[in-house]
Amino acid sequence: MTMEHTYAVIMAGGGGTRLWPVSRKEKPKQLLPLLGQETLFQDTVRRLENLFSPERIFIVTVEEQAREMHLQSPEIPEENYIIEPSPRGTASVVGLAATVLYKRDKDAAMAVLPSDHFIRNRDLFHYLLKAAFDVAANGYLVTLGITPTHPSTAYGYIQQGEPLNGSYKYPTYKVKSFKEKPNEKTAQKLLHTGDHSWNSGMFIWHADSILNEIDRQMPDLGNALRKISAVWGTEEQSGVLNENWQGLKNVTVDYGIMEKAERVAILPAGGLGWSDVGMWSSLFEVLLPDMSGNISTNSSLHLAYETHNTLVYGGNGDRLIVTIGVDDMVIVDGGDVIMVCKTDQAQKVKDVVEHLKKHRQEKYL
Amino acid sequence: MTMEHTYAVIMAGGGGTRLWPVSRKEKPKQLLPLLGQETLFQDTVRRLENLFSPERIFIVTVEEQAREMHLQSPEIPEENYIIEPSPRGTASVVGLAATVLYKRDKDAAMAVLPSDHFIRNRDLFHYLLKAAFDVAANGYLVTLGITPTHPSTAYGYIQQGEPLNGSYKYPTYKVKSFKEKPNEKTAQKLLHTGDHSWNSGMFIWHADSILNEIDRQMPDLGNALRKISAVWGTEEQSGVLNENWQGLKNVTVDYGIMEKAERVAILPAGGLGWSDVGMWSSLFEVLLPDMSGNISTNSSLHLAYETHNTLVYGGNGDRLIVTIGVDDMVIVDGGDVIMVCKTDQAQKVKDVVEHLKKHRQEKYL
Repeated sequence: MTMEHTYAVIMAGGGGTRLWPVSRKEKPKQLLPLLGQETLFQDTVRRLENLFSPERIFIVTVEEQAREMHLQSPEIPEENYIIEPSPRGTASVVGLAATVLYKRDKDAAMAVLPSDHFIRNRDLFHYLLKAAFDVAANGYLVTLGITPTHPSTAYGYIQQGEPLNGSYKYPTYKVKSFKEKPNEKTAQKLLHTGDHSWNSGMFIWHADSILNEIDRQMPDLGNALRKISAVWGTEEQSGVLNENWQGLKNVTVDYGIMEKAERVAILPAGGLGWSDVGMWSSLFEVLLPDMSGNISTNSSLHLAYETHNTLVYGGNGDRLIVTIGVDDMVIVDGGDVIMVCKTDQAQKVKDVVEHLKKHRQEKYL
Repeated sequence: MTMEHTYAVIMAGGGGTRLWPVSRKEKPKQLLPLLGQETLFQDTVRRLENLFSPERIFIVTVEEQAREMHLQSPEIPEENYIIEPSPRGTASVVGLAATVLYKRDKDAAMAVLPSDHFIRNRDLFHYLLKAAFDVAANGYLVTLGITPTHPSTAYGYIQQGEPLNGSYKYPTYKVKSFKEKPNEKTAQKLLHTGDHSWNSGMFIWHADSILNEIDRQMPDLGNALRKISAVWGTEEQSGVLNENWQGLKNVTVDYGIMEKAERVAILPAGGLGWSDVGMWSSLFEVLLPDMSGNISTNSSLHLAYETHNTLVYGGNGDRLIVTIGVDDMVIVDGGDVIMVCKTDQAQKVKDVVEHLKKHRQEKYL
């Protein structure tokens, strides 16, 4: 296939609390150097090298984050930032991006990519995107599924159906159903069916395909997008965008569009080395530990003594972190917060954040 | 007995590394608020209330610590501070204190007390000191032994011999031998003999008794002390002290004097609630944990979530320490050092300090 008319759309508006106390209201996960030198956002942009030129990479985000992103990845042109006036769910975001690209290029095909995930196998990722664009060329809304490696309750699942007719360069299936995050027992069952993938949040489609589905399933959003499209690039852009944005329903693209869409396909991907870096313990999947299983990142000064399988995320400055006789722990120096957490309890960080919210400890949020 | 002619001598010169990273070169253990509000030094002074008036409490320490002590316990008169020019072992310190007291009061009896230990049962402590002064009145060098509760390898041991003839108000024995810190196996054996106590470092004697022993066993020290005594309280005091101090042998009172002394007695004390607060895990013996076994001290902001038997020693300021799924851990916020240590490995803190010394990390020492 040719990659002419293809675009990448990085979705980067989110917050998230499970990487607290490093991720904060004003410092979301994608802008943090969780991987060492680079932030997840920078890594996401770099992952697109040799597939999309910077001019064909678009970023949808909120005003406050755009400045920092531009500093982190200056190669992306400023005019490629599409600013959400306020968070209104991924259905709206995806619709806005498709509208902007469609106005620019009636044949636009787009890969919608989260800004805060990790993928180790860049070659396979490129190969899959190209394969997905081929499928999308036939009018499909395509998603990359991740072959489950354990019964995760942290992800939504997608069930595949019949193989898609046609000659594609990667096994491609119709989507049978989207499923919410399951409980432990259901996750066990889904893992063993063999026909369920994790929902990665990566989508590939033609702009007109998704806009048609929006018109069919979410006509209010479709109408708003038409009004926005009419003035996009004129002086009225910002006013009309704001005016129409406020009233939009806050729904995800999965729930609002994908679940009932007509032509949906999935490429189940094993071996991508994918992680949503959804909590501190995910870093053990992403970074290479030393021979004791320890990881020290964000240039932490870590002195490990009889310590195993322990992650130390340093703060700024030269604070020394000493561990003695510590196993299976995550230790995070968040400046005004120090967190010590058993690795297998890392998902409970969000409970702590809820607790602090409830008790109005704004300074730590 | 009457407490006339009795004095308390608090020995407060030491350093120690096992409570690092809070105890530092310039901030020794006894000056730290390990117990919450009060420092160990303040607690040691307060423990003497109703037994010694402040005028009869003397403190032997180094210049740098004296200032801070005076701030912490202003009731002790400044002239009661006996300043060691430099650390020269407890034999020298004890000799100097005895010399100063003897010059002031030929009938002086003194209780030598470490500044950095904890004792819960203050009434029993007072009772034992009074009983010990009765024994000391007969020319004995008396020590308080601590009845062992576990096979500790952190303390020296004292073996008791025959009961002392005479009518005393507490069971009193001749000392058979002093023993160095044992290894694990020997400690097990000593625990079961029933006639061994831990060496608490608390001594009670008449000034002339100890000075006579010094003359007999350490004549060089005796001679130096005579020269110092001759000019004590005159303009020459400081010069003569410095001059004679430098050449003294650096030995402990146990090794240099007690082991071969002639009339040595021991009062084996159970139930004192004594701890030498020798390492972080000792605080579990000293402070009352909450119902989950957790202790938060030094006004730390500790948010404990599924956390048990864990000690959090806060830093200054309002840094929040969050623990999730943590058991049996000591977490210390030392400002520029954060330490996370399994409770039963707390004695290894000194290895870390050695390591940092070896690699010249002065800023953390």
